[in-house]
Amino acid sequence: MLAAHIASGAISLIETPRPRLRKGFSLLRLRLAGICNTDIELLRGYYGFAGIPGHEFVADVVASSDPNLTGKRVVGEINLACGHCADCRSGFGRHCLKRTVLGILGHPGAFAEYLTLPTANLFPLPHSIPDEHAVFTEPIAAACEILDQVRFPRGARVAVLGDGKLGLLIAQVLHIHGCDTTLLGRNASKLALLPLPTRLLDRHQPSLPAAAFTHVVDATGSAEGLQSALTLVRPRGTIILKSTVNDRFPIDMARVIVNEISLIGSRCGRFAPALRLLRSRRLILNPMIHAQYPLARAPEAFAHAQSPRVLKVLLTP
Amino acid sequence: MLAAHIASGAISLIETPRPRLRKGFSLLRLRLAGICNTDIELLRGYYGFAGIPGHEFVADVVASSDPNLTGKRVVGEINLACGHCADCRSGFGRHCLKRTVLGILGHPGAFAEYLTLPTANLFPLPHSIPDEHAVFTEPIAAACEILDQVRFPRGARVAVLGDGKLGLLIAQVLHIHGCDTTLLGRNASKLALLPLPTRLLDRHQPSLPAAAFTHVVDATGSAEGLQSALTLVRPRGTIILKSTVNDRFPIDMARVIVNEISLIGSRCGRFAPALRLLRSRRLILNPMIHAQYPLARAPEAFAHAQSPRVLKVLLTP
Repeated sequence: MLAAHIASGAISLIETPRPRLRKGFSLLRLRLAGICNTDIELLRGYYGFAGIPGHEFVADVVASSDPNLTGKRVVGEINLACGHCADCRSGFGRHCLKRTVLGILGHPGAFAEYLTLPTANLFPLPHSIPDEHAVFTEPIAAACEILDQVRFPRGARVAVLGDGKLGLLIAQVLHIHGCDTTLLGRNASKLALLPLPTRLLDRHQPSLPAAAFTHVVDATGSAEGLQSALTLVRPRGTIILKSTVNDRFPIDMARVIVNEISLIGSRCGRFAPALRLLRSRRLILNPMIHAQYPLARAPEAFAHAQSPRVLKVLLTP
Repeated sequence: MLAAHIASGAISLIETPRPRLRKGFSLLRLRLAGICNTDIELLRGYYGFAGIPGHEFVADVVASSDPNLTGKRVVGEINLACGHCADCRSGFGRHCLKRTVLGILGHPGAFAEYLTLPTANLFPLPHSIPDEHAVFTEPIAAACEILDQVRFPRGARVAVLGDGKLGLLIAQVLHIHGCDTTLLGRNASKLALLPLPTRLLDRHQPSLPAAAFTHVVDATGSAEGLQSALTLVRPRGTIILKSTVNDRFPIDMARVIVNEISLIGSRCGRFAPALRLLRSRRLILNPMIHAQYPLARAPEAFAHAQSPRVLKVLLTP
């Protein structure tokens, strides 16, 4: 089968055997996949990754440990947990220390004609959610994860910092949840996509309203994002860290301590709330799709996805 | 009056006029004061401090806007808030952006024969709490602050990292609260002071049990403490930052995000819970007092307080 492959900071196409069906797993045929910033980080060396990337996907079940699933259109949670450890038993297989992660850590990803996942990870899709929306399930789940971690009190004033793909989803999820949400970013055309308060930041000298928000989500993907968040947040406020940044960067910890700020790392989320949100049709997703490439042109798609102002780039088999 | 004075990284003794009583304030005559690590940080340049340090004290009220308080023995909260802003109105005067702080920021401290504080900051002491215990009220309040910020679930396994003055108080407060608390430090004699599980860390190659605790309090006062805490804490766990460290230091943010760790800055606390705890006589404080000096020997007392393995050094007028 055809697959995209990352090694030593380069992406190429390979022919590789179709993965074999293991016990408890399903074999999936790709329908649509999305390129995420994490994929771009993998290409840049995050996790020392080498292999088939891709974790945002919609697929058809070709064969499965659960015969009822065969032929179904599905999305799938990306963490492959051991199922037995304390984390797994307490419902946090996403944090299983023995986990592999689809297209990120020890399990071949979705930028291929076929992929496998544990059958328990799969969610059949209702007809009402088209492929072009379902492919956003994983990043929407990552946005919804914030609501599993943080209880937003009435009147919470929330800033989402960063108008990239994840920032736009997070701002929508928190806005729909009822938070008084402002999206801050550097790109007027991206900010204009959403029907909520926005603030355009100057690229070189961003003027940030100091201590104006009870909660700030850093979705900038940059080391500077956290420093800006520390300016925006009120004393005793909460900063949610949503950027997978590959650096150790210095943080003004005296400020965190004196102002009693909470910094909350946030990663993957549950698919069920994301699918409920997709079914509600309240999310604005179509304008976020900027291009679609066949898998055979994956290197071109990755280059496009890294261009300035480009949002979601999709891959078809 | 006699006072200790810090300027340009040096401590000296000065003769200075007794402070004047302002409206809403009380004039206090010192009974006993304690040297805190923050005082030592002030001497080293934290906040660019110049003035009379000292914020841990017991004093007698000489004159007051509340005549009932005159003659009373008191302790006092150290933040002088404006009383009118949103933070003050919501009960968080400790975070008032216009605040001054006794002996730390814009208000002369307690290492002097006389000091002033807003009368609203004062707490009369019951006879059952002797001066030598009452002088710990402020750091005990800082330890209790953790309980105001973090809800510890049943079965929380808590590590307190650092066997300095604050670490010893925090470990006791959390142990009394009912947490399964382990104190980790580098000094066997300090660890032996408390009747709770401890772990001696090698000074050069500390072996830390990885992902063994749901909550870790970093009270090391060092930049390395947070990195150790990140090793000790379980995925989705909480690290409470209790060290006022004057550096910007690099943090492995990818680890914070991937493991969904919460980092919670924690500073001063309310005095009422600390006084309740002092009245219960459940805290072990006497062995933490290592020396007592008259104010006239404050430079010597500061030198002593900075010696290895020395815990609380007290000052008398």
